[in-house]
Amino acid sequence: MKKYDKLVKNAAGRMVPTIINGENHIPFQGVGKYNPTGRRYGPKIPTCNDFPDGNKEVSTLKEALINAGIKDGMTISSHHHFRNGDLIAKQVFDIAHDLGIKNLRWFPSASFPCQEELIKYLEDGTINRIEGSMNGPLGKFTSEGKMKGLSILRSHGGRYQAVQDGEVKIDIAIIAAPTADTFGNANGVNGDAACGLLGFALADSQYAEKVIVVTDNLVPFPCIPWQIQGNYVDFVVKVDKVGLPEKIISGTTQITKSPDRLLIAEITADFCEKTGLIYDGFSYQAGAGGTALSIGNYFGDILRKNNWKARFIRAGSNQYPVELLEEGLVEYILDGQTFDLEGVRSMRENPNHVNTSPFTSYNFHSKGNFAQLVDIVVLGATEIDVDFNANVVTHSDGYLLHGIGGWQNCLAAKTTIMPIPLFRDRIPVIRDRVTTLCAPGELIDVIVTERGIAINPLRKDLIQKARVSGIELKTIYQLKEEAEKICGVPEEVKLSDEIVSVIKWVDGTVIDSVKKVITE
Amino acid sequence: MKKYDKLVKNAAGRMVPTIINGENHIPFQGVGKYNPTGRRYGPKIPTCNDFPDGNKEVSTLKEALINAGIKDGMTISSHHHFRNGDLIAKQVFDIAHDLGIKNLRWFPSASFPCQEELIKYLEDGTINRIEGSMNGPLGKFTSEGKMKGLSILRSHGGRYQAVQDGEVKIDIAIIAAPTADTFGNANGVNGDAACGLLGFALADSQYAEKVIVVTDNLVPFPCIPWQIQGNYVDFVVKVDKVGLPEKIISGTTQITKSPDRLLIAEITADFCEKTGLIYDGFSYQAGAGGTALSIGNYFGDILRKNNWKARFIRAGSNQYPVELLEEGLVEYILDGQTFDLEGVRSMRENPNHVNTSPFTSYNFHSKGNFAQLVDIVVLGATEIDVDFNANVVTHSDGYLLHGIGGWQNCLAAKTTIMPIPLFRDRIPVIRDRVTTLCAPGELIDVIVTERGIAINPLRKDLIQKARVSGIELKTIYQLKEEAEKICGVPEEVKLSDEIVSVIKWVDGTVIDSVKKVITE
Repeated sequence: MKKYDKLVKNAAGRMVPTIINGENHIPFQGVGKYNPTGRRYGPKIPTCNDFPDGNKEVSTLKEALINAGIKDGMTISSHHHFRNGDLIAKQVFDIAHDLGIKNLRWFPSASFPCQEELIKYLEDGTINRIEGSMNGPLGKFTSEGKMKGLSILRSHGGRYQAVQDGEVKIDIAIIAAPTADTFGNANGVNGDAACGLLGFALADSQYAEKVIVVTDNLVPFPCIPWQIQGNYVDFVVKVDKVGLPEKIISGTTQITKSPDRLLIAEITADFCEKTGLIYDGFSYQAGAGGTALSIGNYFGDILRKNNWKARFIRAGSNQYPVELLEEGLVEYILDGQTFDLEGVRSMRENPNHVNTSPFTSYNFHSKGNFAQLVDIVVLGATEIDVDFNANVVTHSDGYLLHGIGGWQNCLAAKTTIMPIPLFRDRIPVIRDRVTTLCAPGELIDVIVTERGIAINPLRKDLIQKARVSGIELKTIYQLKEEAEKICGVPEEVKLSDEIVSVIKWVDGTVIDSVKKVITE
Repeated sequence: MKKYDKLVKNAAGRMVPTIINGENHIPFQGVGKYNPTGRRYGPKIPTCNDFPDGNKEVSTLKEALINAGIKDGMTISSHHHFRNGDLIAKQVFDIAHDLGIKNLRWFPSASFPCQEELIKYLEDGTINRIEGSMNGPLGKFTSEGKMKGLSILRSHGGRYQAVQDGEVKIDIAIIAAPTADTFGNANGVNGDAACGLLGFALADSQYAEKVIVVTDNLVPFPCIPWQIQGNYVDFVVKVDKVGLPEKIISGTTQITKSPDRLLIAEITADFCEKTGLIYDGFSYQAGAGGTALSIGNYFGDILRKNNWKARFIRAGSNQYPVELLEEGLVEYILDGQTFDLEGVRSMRENPNHVNTSPFTSYNFHSKGNFAQLVDIVVLGATEIDVDFNANVVTHSDGYLLHGIGGWQNCLAAKTTIMPIPLFRDRIPVIRDRVTTLCAPGELIDVIVTERGIAINPLRKDLIQKARVSGIELKTIYQLKEEAEKICGVPEEVKLSDEIVSVIKWVDGTVIDSVKKVITE
């Protein structure tokens, strides 16, 4: 089977395959242009006849996989709430390898450096390909063209959409859970390995043919809360240790100490305040990066000063949003992923710290989603181009080193702001054309750098407000020139014509291809 | 179209139609014998393109119904969490009538006497038929053969199953909600009309093509908790008053004062204690009838005396289970329906009073359900026969006056006990053959009357335990004879051959037909 075939130029002008791993895919048609047909996917109807006493415990993960009917070519899914502390995915593929299974599609919600060991199974054909965000070594492996199948990257919302729509049919879902009962109800807030929530596994539980819950903390029914509902679960396995909760803390979840980044954060918050984007009852989402966290703190200062409250923060939570919640500056945290143990604690204790899922927050094939209701979203990017298009997955050297996460989905917010340094390691961030197109420029409203702000010409309202407030604006061309004056005009990186991955847009269409890097 | 056609004798020996309102239905095959084929139903895939700002508010219910595309022959659903205090269903059909719409299928989770006025729309053809539990006047109307289509009665779990499996396709779901936001997130715990939860509307929200939330308490996004998820909702309508919460209190939700019933309750609790059915960590479900509530109180006494805790009560909650929870005699209430305002308050305040749904608790086409995990369930019946078969929908005069509720689903518990009086209004409850078969006798374990206990001969284990404990047992024939000695042998009621309703079993098969009463 060819990895991909039948390239066409999509509505963004990017060449993308329409046949990927033997299946048809639709090229990007423009923002808001593709309307789905068809019906929500339905897995086979189960029956209580097959679960006569509701006790689904089996002795080992191997037994569960065999009972679930693991075989060649299946799709095996997992979630990444343990981030770099996952212990289960590797065990699953060790077992598959021992059983001589080949050609699996691994469908994680994201992969992390701790899963680097799986490269050997990508090499020996146990795993055909990864479809899911790749952070680090697995991305590098993919960039070098070594994966047998073609990888597909989807946003968190796009992953839910693909499963819901039946584009990806999960045969066996593996749900590592910090707490569960033998019926399969499970949560992430209790237990030694508490990681907060399990929302990334929601689609898997609802739509997979077979669902295996793996836990190290088995409690008597009912496991409360049931973030994953046992009614969807086939097997429950008790293991010694399900994950390393201390490793859910991402390296970037500390307030930045860089003076440049602090400056960017301050400029961003100031811009939001002066243009009236912040008001009593406003809402925002900021990621877990150092700059984004600093911006959250500045937002807190503005709220405190005005005696205002934010209605909600959409998060990725950690200690900083939790502090705002506990201080009463924010009414709710609507949380999709906890980034530290303070986030976990708060979600466990505080009913206003609410667990969400890619379904509620990000699914584009839904009757609206939460991302649309957020006033301000603050996002990073590896590259932005003069048309405000942005890249979040590849570096300017072409290497695929980051996942999309909820980044694409968040662009639905009322105002999208990208605070970025003008250059990183003396490589300008603003380019003529992004290496990989992850976000169409029309959805990106404001670029904030340490040397000035550029507003997308489409946002005339915001340009007007900025002018009235006396904020000095630059064009994106001016910002690009300033960087190039300092760093020089970057050389174009030469990439192979061979495609190693495709990037899905939030509606399931293919927005761009990722090219193989030339290593020789 | 014929109301029904092609009768066959099913595995319970009952004659049932296999074509109902023009659609094929499967006759009952025996307990645990029918295995579904096919896939879960999928409604059309929606897109955020149609919900650009997430605000779904429209001015009136009429506008919402028109926007939802209401037309002849559609299926309109509603829930019964307001019980006899519903205000919305009537308005929906008033609007449909004004618009000249005909031939609707009304698919409520249950209907109540407050909806008696809808009879005029059943007569004039606005509504073709009701598929859903009928309590009181609408049941009488049906029994007399006056409904144009054939009614179908389903249990709460059977209703979820029918929707999930695509047997009933809901065109427009109406979800009356005590609190909601304009995105459509909704709950039953807050607001002037708080009714506790909205679980009966879960299937409707997940599977209907169009979903309308109607509320009198619109709050800013996010409405927390979101028992109904706005991601499934198309329209939100604000009205002056959505329901009368004081009328959710059923007439039977008081501890019985009848000495006979108190005696039956005491005998039941004593039986459970002596046979070891009650233990530290046990679980039970008892309905909201006077006898059942008294049994709950006796269970409380047993727990208190032994310094034990029940792990959970499955409920229908009201003040009595709430008292046990607050006293610490019970760890969790897993609640499907609140029967009084104390139940509502407790669900709002107490995280251990958990809202459930027919999906979690009762859906038979699920990977197990909660009903299976309950140690003791206490249920009533209108009739029981010498084979332990039971009836809960018709009286011995043939009138269909009650819904099935969760009754059939609860029979999955480890031990099912029916505490019943030997006779009511001098009519014996134990019969040669139940008028309408709602529960196969093999699922009913114990009959407790004021004059003795009969255990199903299939439960040899329980008979043994009772004997060891010195509990005197009778056969069901002995109980029947005792009643007949007092009341005389009841005359068989003459019913028409015409079928007015069918009863579904929990797996979607047809277990019995209800015959028209002869009124002349």
